[in-house]
Amino acid sequence: MTLLEATLQDFPRIDMEARAAARSRLEQLTMPHWGLGRLMDLAEELAGMCGAMPPPVTAKTIVTMAADHGIAAQGVSGYPREVTLQMVHNFVAGGAGINVLSRLAGVRVVIADLGVDGDFSELVKVGKIIDRKIARGTQDMTRGPAMSRAEAVQAIEAGIAIARELGPETDVFGTGEMGIGNTTPSSAIVALYARAPIAEVTGRGTGIDDRQLAHKIDLIEKAIAANAPDITDPIDILAKVGGFEIGGIAGIILGAASQRKPVLIDGFISTAGALIAAHVEPRSREFMIASHRSMEPGHRIALKCLDKKPLLDLDLRLGEGTGAALAMHFVEAAVRILTEVATFAEARVSQAGT
Amino acid sequence: MTLLEATLQDFPRIDMEARAAARSRLEQLTMPHWGLGRLMDLAEELAGMCGAMPPPVTAKTIVTMAADHGIAAQGVSGYPREVTLQMVHNFVAGGAGINVLSRLAGVRVVIADLGVDGDFSELVKVGKIIDRKIARGTQDMTRGPAMSRAEAVQAIEAGIAIARELGPETDVFGTGEMGIGNTTPSSAIVALYARAPIAEVTGRGTGIDDRQLAHKIDLIEKAIAANAPDITDPIDILAKVGGFEIGGIAGIILGAASQRKPVLIDGFISTAGALIAAHVEPRSREFMIASHRSMEPGHRIALKCLDKKPLLDLDLRLGEGTGAALAMHFVEAAVRILTEVATFAEARVSQAGT
Repeated sequence: MTLLEATLQDFPRIDMEARAAARSRLEQLTMPHWGLGRLMDLAEELAGMCGAMPPPVTAKTIVTMAADHGIAAQGVSGYPREVTLQMVHNFVAGGAGINVLSRLAGVRVVIADLGVDGDFSELVKVGKIIDRKIARGTQDMTRGPAMSRAEAVQAIEAGIAIARELGPETDVFGTGEMGIGNTTPSSAIVALYARAPIAEVTGRGTGIDDRQLAHKIDLIEKAIAANAPDITDPIDILAKVGGFEIGGIAGIILGAASQRKPVLIDGFISTAGALIAAHVEPRSREFMIASHRSMEPGHRIALKCLDKKPLLDLDLRLGEGTGAALAMHFVEAAVRILTEVATFAEARVSQAGT
Repeated sequence: MTLLEATLQDFPRIDMEARAAARSRLEQLTMPHWGLGRLMDLAEELAGMCGAMPPPVTAKTIVTMAADHGIAAQGVSGYPREVTLQMVHNFVAGGAGINVLSRLAGVRVVIADLGVDGDFSELVKVGKIIDRKIARGTQDMTRGPAMSRAEAVQAIEAGIAIARELGPETDVFGTGEMGIGNTTPSSAIVALYARAPIAEVTGRGTGIDDRQLAHKIDLIEKAIAANAPDITDPIDILAKVGGFEIGGIAGIILGAASQRKPVLIDGFISTAGALIAAHVEPRSREFMIASHRSMEPGHRIALKCLDKKPLLDLDLRLGEGTGAALAMHFVEAAVRILTEVATFAEARVSQAGT
């Protein structure tokens, strides 16, 4: 049995008893009924995911997956390909957005190389980067599949393995990514799942102009036409129009959910990975928390497709896991509300209608 | 010269130089241009407010103002009047939503009694509550002004005095309140400033039913008709259809802004106070940050009237300062981004178009 098959066996469900126990306490807190709205929804959901009341959320880990993309050579990004490599060095040095927001929220950042076009052997040796490199970037998907089916499974299993390795020291996971060109495969995946026109789910990524945007849309149309991905087969979609880090994100989600760990989905690219995971195992969806809605126009559609309402809407379009890092504060806040606010009885406060 | 007059003399403006310095650094950070969206807007605004680059935001204080309302006797809330008093005890004991969310965000909570129908002398003696009690609740505004003009000025000056007292140990202020019945005067204030129908700006507060809501709307109409507040005079509005804690909130805002301190506006009632402050001194508006949009339907209209876009939208309807406490994390995050993320040059990352 492969790691993927083993992970999908006896996949957990939400624990309705823990959810009910959380709801029961939340309804007795000294505030108008459900006065903290979505924070209280989140507390209830976390209890159901973790199968515990209160749910443990102390140890938080964001896994930021990096990889390069064959399609980047065709000019789909404002930035040159080597920025993927450079930004991984920036992550390791602690100077990127994800480092800063994770430090603030008390979140550990783990960097994994799923397919960067560069050599990190020194950093891997000292434990700064997890080496799961599949290849030095995907193939150009307008000329054939981005990767082989075996590589697609390998990407997902890399994510699962990392989530299992980190599981004993992680209560809540978050996803993140870095990969110049990776909004392009993400738009392809979202277009396929949402059955939406490519132009509607394709945006400016890091900030391309009108001409480049038209070119990007054209390339995605070509890639889908050239590969004819099987919409009923998420591994086929990932292989043909995906990316290594997108498969890795799907794996993190499946690996987290299989251990009953909540997982915060970052932005557009992470949501493309979440769509792959949700189609590999629909029950994994119940362990996902949408952290934010990004500026990328396809993200709204992708979230709708995933049937998730994001916690934040702050015009972010950075990725790396920055939205997940910001939303971790709400995970912590939700559980503190659940456990630390006094009930009417405890505080001797009169209830409504008395 | 009165304290209010002194506060309005030489009222500060946004420091455009500090703003520009912040913007300049934000534009060089290792991310797509303005990749963290509204977090970067906030960082720039904070620099302008504080007149410093980077803006100091370490010491955070939320002032939660409590008072009772004459109108509460007419059944505008689902909760009995004594809940104001009981909840103040809950605040002091650290068991309320505002305590929990403030502890999490590293925010100090200061409780001020502006007019609660109860005796806190023991708690005032030991420094747990600031005593600025004006009266044991306002008068019933359907039968005359909620308070005298002198009391309205006294409420605002109480807020100013508290903000000045806390100023030396506070970088960023937040507002909060507790007062059974206080969405009723808030709706009256918002209706007047937005020139909106009462029914559009009046909601269910802590959770009243349809019959009670119709009654509440009717009472607000009566109060405005009975008092005919002068729309050009914010003190007159506060006196006739306001509340002591609403005046106190206006004072906190004026006092904070007069010291160049940013102030996070909590929910619906706080925004009513902010509208009073903005009409007493329009420049105070430039120091306000809207923390969230509450479930109360009039809040959307009130925020539009104030021309502020909230950071969060989480269906909160608790008050106390809880939305401000949640948004404090973003104030901290914004400044960390500004100061801790590496620039392209520092991290040797290639820029767009290279």
